[in-house]
Amino acid sequence: SEILQLNSVNVADILEELDTNEAVILFRMLPKDMAVEVFSYLSNEQQRNIIDSITDKEIKHIMDELFFDDMIDFIEEMPANIVKKILKNTKEEERVLINQFLNYPENSAGSLMTIEYVDLRKDMTVRQAIDHIKETGIEKETIYTCYVTDANRKLEGIVSLRKLVITPDEKNIEEIMNKNVVYVHTHDDQEVVAHLFKKYDLIAIPVLDKEERLTGIITIDDIVDVIEQENTEDFQKMAGMEPSEIEYLDANFLTLAKNRITWLLILMISATFTGRIIQKFEDVLQSVVVLAAFIPMLMDTGGNAGAQSSTLIIRGLALGEIKTKDFFRVIVKELIVSTVVGIALAGINFVRIYYIEKIDLKISITVTGTLFLTVVLAKVVGGVLPIVARKCKLDPAIMASPLITTIVDAVALVVYFSFASWILGI
Amino acid sequence: SEILQLNSVNVADILEELDTNEAVILFRMLPKDMAVEVFSYLSNEQQRNIIDSITDKEIKHIMDELFFDDMIDFIEEMPANIVKKILKNTKEEERVLINQFLNYPENSAGSLMTIEYVDLRKDMTVRQAIDHIKETGIEKETIYTCYVTDANRKLEGIVSLRKLVITPDEKNIEEIMNKNVVYVHTHDDQEVVAHLFKKYDLIAIPVLDKEERLTGIITIDDIVDVIEQENTEDFQKMAGMEPSEIEYLDANFLTLAKNRITWLLILMISATFTGRIIQKFEDVLQSVVVLAAFIPMLMDTGGNAGAQSSTLIIRGLALGEIKTKDFFRVIVKELIVSTVVGIALAGINFVRIYYIEKIDLKISITVTGTLFLTVVLAKVVGGVLPIVARKCKLDPAIMASPLITTIVDAVALVVYFSFASWILGI
Ligand SMILES: [Mg+2]
Ligand SMILES: [Mg+2]
Ligand SMILES: [Mg+2]
Ligand SMILES: [Mg+2]
Ligand SMILES: [Mg+2]
Ligand SMILES: [Mg+2]
Ligand SMILES: [Mg+2]
Ligand SMILES: [Mg+2]
Ligand SMILES: [Mg+2]
Ligand SMILES: [Mg+2]
Ligand SMILES: [Mg+2]
Ligand SMILES: [Mg+2]
Ligand SMILES: [Mg+2]
Repeated sequence: SEILQLNSVNVADILEELDTNEAVILFRMLPKDMAVEVFSYLSNEQQRNIIDSITDKEIKHIMDELFFDDMIDFIEEMPANIVKKILKNTKEEERVLINQFLNYPENSAGSLMTIEYVDLRKDMTVRQAIDHIKETGIEKETIYTCYVTDANRKLEGIVSLRKLVITPDEKNIEEIMNKNVVYVHTHDDQEVVAHLFKKYDLIAIPVLDKEERLTGIITIDDIVDVIEQENTEDFQKMAGMEPSEIEYLDANFLTLAKNRITWLLILMISATFTGRIIQKFEDVLQSVVVLAAFIPMLMDTGGNAGAQSSTLIIRGLALGEIKTKDFFRVIVKELIVSTVVGIALAGINFVRIYYIEKIDLKISITVTGTLFLTVVLAKVVGGVLPIVARKCKLDPAIMASPLITTIVDAVALVVYFSFASWILGI
Repeated sequence: SEILQLNSVNVADILEELDTNEAVILFRMLPKDMAVEVFSYLSNEQQRNIIDSITDKEIKHIMDELFFDDMIDFIEEMPANIVKKILKNTKEEERVLINQFLNYPENSAGSLMTIEYVDLRKDMTVRQAIDHIKETGIEKETIYTCYVTDANRKLEGIVSLRKLVITPDEKNIEEIMNKNVVYVHTHDDQEVVAHLFKKYDLIAIPVLDKEERLTGIITIDDIVDVIEQENTEDFQKMAGMEPSEIEYLDANFLTLAKNRITWLLILMISATFTGRIIQKFEDVLQSVVVLAAFIPMLMDTGGNAGAQSSTLIIRGLALGEIKTKDFFRVIVKELIVSTVVGIALAGINFVRIYYIEKIDLKISITVTGTLFLTVVLAKVVGGVLPIVARKCKLDPAIMASPLITTIVDAVALVVYFSFASWILGI
């Protein structure tokens, strides 16, 4: 009974900590309404455990009461035998709808939407609308935005519950509805949907099919998850990994290894070309071996400088703050910033190696000059490549630190040894 | 008049594109209500332009109608003379409140909250509550969650508008209110607040002061911005930059340079120690100069491998999916994954350099062995350091690619040359 005082989210947390048997026992003791809500917050693993141990009637109740989007998400994760068990317990009509929803592409608006929304007709009065909500609202995901549709389910406008509550009873919906609706289509990407929520401060958005009929709504709580998921994807891509939605601690070793190895391999092979550059200049190195000591510093500083720029540009593109048309503004900006940064770093470096470490003047000049040029080149390359990627319809996130570092390393070494053989006259 | 059909967000977009004079003219033509909403979506620059060119009376209207949080955000960005102009037009009582709100620490719950919420008393009936909302609700930021307080402003419970609408008129608020409220305090960090929104799928959260009195609410639209801002901060820190909220294209050169230079400098100095390692092993390198050709590949692969692990752990910590108590699970996981990845990379590398490039066997073994060890060490270091940072109350995000790369570079070179002098017998 203490459990009843808790939020469903916290009950789900508790169930997650219990072992299967205890979890099932506690779950069955929950009041029916709460049980469904708790179920929607459980991990797929615990959901499966529970489904495996409860009766068909109990399963049917959960499926009936779950919001449609949560049900679809749940079905997607279950193995075939459980899906069968579930579909057996649903009506023909609902089965068709389930199949339609299962078929929306991953990460599309369709895969996020749910069907529990309030729909009104424009010839209703406010009083009729509120009565309609009172009758049906309890089963709706959000009743804070109501959708006005015509006989063909075409969307004609929206009314917020706020507006309904503060408007006199006898007014018509048509008079108070907002016809300028922000909406998406079922096949729009979730990133586009999230962008609209952010831009217009929405709590729900209607989703239309190809015939412009209202087919569902997407609510803000699911969009918040999308935003974090898209950010995780970018973090992973930017660190040279294949993106994965599986949480780190839940992922098995082979999945983790597989996601990491492709890019490591590509970058390893690329780095051998950088090695070739050193081989090509072996005689320079042979005669002035001390040159090798500055290679890590030059390569790392170049890589870091490039990674900074590419990160800012990738992030700006993701948030819509930078557009591909800003290409030249970015180049100019990076040229100026990198000149400032390059002069500062090169200056400090020169003081350190010439005055403090007493390295030969010609070598000091070679290292310092290379450092400056590398920083400038790295920042321009880091600033430009993400925009080029976007132009080529690639994800800018791949143009991040790992790739930039590899490119800049090669450039830095060519500059370094060319400089060296010129200044040192080798 | 076509403008009137548009969403305020789009009107703000249009004003943003116009020059100051045109913008002010168009702004003054807007209906008063829309003008305030449009104003809240403008950039600080355009807000300032408008405030500079409108009358005190118009300013007063905007200040009266803006939601309190938007007004505070606006005042924070304005220069002293404009703030004076604004405060001149507010009542003593409001001025006190403005000062209180301006004093909440940056990124605290207090700095995000607004004061426009519906408060109810528990002895009200549903009918009375709805009438109260009808009277006052139009000026509230959200009326979808209503807050039940006692005479001392202590929070006693919440009622959703949904519940109010579907409950019979004569019921008492006390009977239907939810006493188990998720709340925050004014000085809690915004990251904590955002975490609660995500966990409990909230659209608003109440904010209490030290005496547990209700002082404001935070709404989901502002939390969505916080989430993106926190992610941007992590992206920037992870690329070795000081975080900044200024958009890239708006930031001036010196700010951009300043944010980048500190870490570049620290990492550059650190990398010179890596250079010392090469200097120490100069005789090894002198006798087998081809060893130098593999340095970029070893350093880059190590850096990339470590960056992958640290990124996953930093992200897991940020989302609350990984806790510091998972320390040993992470080590074990990284050891296994890195062994798999290390063997694959080392194998491919050996085939390439020994069989294809026909490099001497001993050198091939040295390079391959170093590669394997570097990958394993890099992944363990990358997995461990973010957790250590969290334990030491540092931001895990600094333990990302730039720092990991620098550490791993040094380790890789020590392993490499030690291996080489041992196997090659130099
Ligand atoms: Mg889904
Ligand atoms: Mg927004
Ligand atoms: Mg949900
Ligand atoms: Mg949902
Ligand atoms: Mg995506
Ligand atoms: Mg993306
Ligand atoms: Mg590197
Ligand atoms: Mg604020
Ligand atoms: Mg959530
Ligand atoms: Mg807002
Ligand atoms: Mg706000
Ligand atoms: Mg923060
Ligand atoms: Mg943070």
